[in-house]
Amino acid sequence: MEQVAKRLTQQISFILEIDQLKQIYRQNLILDGSRRENDAEHSWHLAMMAVVLQEYASEPVDLSRVLQMVLLHDIVEIDAGDTFCYDVQAGLDKHEREQKAAKRIFGLLPSDQGEELKNLWLEFEAGESPEARFAAVLDRLQPFLNNYHTEGGTWRIHGVGSEQVQKRMEPIGINAPALGAYVEKLLEEAIAQGILRK
Amino acid sequence: MEQVAKRLTQQISFILEIDQLKQIYRQNLILDGSRRENDAEHSWHLAMMAVVLQEYASEPVDLSRVLQMVLLHDIVEIDAGDTFCYDVQAGLDKHEREQKAAKRIFGLLPSDQGEELKNLWLEFEAGESPEARFAAVLDRLQPFLNNYHTEGGTWRIHGVGSEQVQKRMEPIGINAPALGAYVEKLLEEAIAQGILRK
Repeated sequence: MEQVAKRLTQQISFILEIDQLKQIYRQNLILDGSRRENDAEHSWHLAMMAVVLQEYASEPVDLSRVLQMVLLHDIVEIDAGDTFCYDVQAGLDKHEREQKAAKRIFGLLPSDQGEELKNLWLEFEAGESPEARFAAVLDRLQPFLNNYHTEGGTWRIHGVGSEQVQKRMEPIGINAPALGAYVEKLLEEAIAQGILRK
Repeated sequence: MEQVAKRLTQQISFILEIDQLKQIYRQNLILDGSRRENDAEHSWHLAMMAVVLQEYASEPVDLSRVLQMVLLHDIVEIDAGDTFCYDVQAGLDKHEREQKAAKRIFGLLPSDQGEELKNLWLEFEAGESPEARFAAVLDRLQPFLNNYHTEGGTWRIHGVGSEQVQKRMEPIGINAPALGAYVEKLLEEAIAQGILRK
């Protein structure tokens, strides 16, 4: 009983800690354009997209692992903050900041479970398994859709150009060809509509 | 190709539609007490809790199905709104409003997929499978923790009494005894601290 109580206390402290993800705001807007999106909402949206779009992964994926990966992929940002994907400068020490955050935050859990979830995060970061590759597809597609449907959103605010976006979207075409083709089409439309500069 | 394009268009329209969950606010606060929590954040938090606490389910559960259930369990609130669990009056036509919402929102998907997700939602609502029972445990535990750690949160704002809370928490003790014992202890503490009236 003592053991169970200690383990559960650690798990609950992790659950309470990650509530902070609801206050980590990303660059992109929510779809009605009224405010920026936070990491908790973003992670939930990716998970729903995994459920709906899993059939487009070019390799078979274990849905449960994809879901866990996208649910926890941004937890390190509680300490490390959100690094805007087109900010080269901030990207330089991102790795170090996030590694340190992972150690602390997953370290709140009982050690077996903390290791397991941290390994899932490392797998996502490495992008070398089918699940990690598909999670990365979703992590790029969601803000892309969001930007397209908020009249350019972050692209316009930060003056991001079509070549940068195209490069960032490359993994989609490789790991989910049908989704890649869809993105290509929207990219052309975005340029034609003047919401993304060429 | 035409078929793929039509199917994907339906799936994307569902994905865009559910963005609205980020603007459906619940009664309970986020943990820093600064604002109310929205359904997207709540659903993400339940999913992370499913990952961390699955070992406490009294029956074995399929994690992937629990995750999908908690991720989509509040989607009907886009049309039906959030019904406060202690509001008896609003609860009267909740079922009808939500059924109608499910038909419309899951109906945006290709019919096979829409049926599948709607059935998962119906399974959650019926609460008769191990996964649905465990999802209900999480759906009660998360706002409970939130209220306890925001000095009574919703309990204080709405003058909810300990008997009402105790009754609402009953499924936790039945379907996850260790979590039920934990809740019992916090309930006593909440009364002792005067953040929940007896």
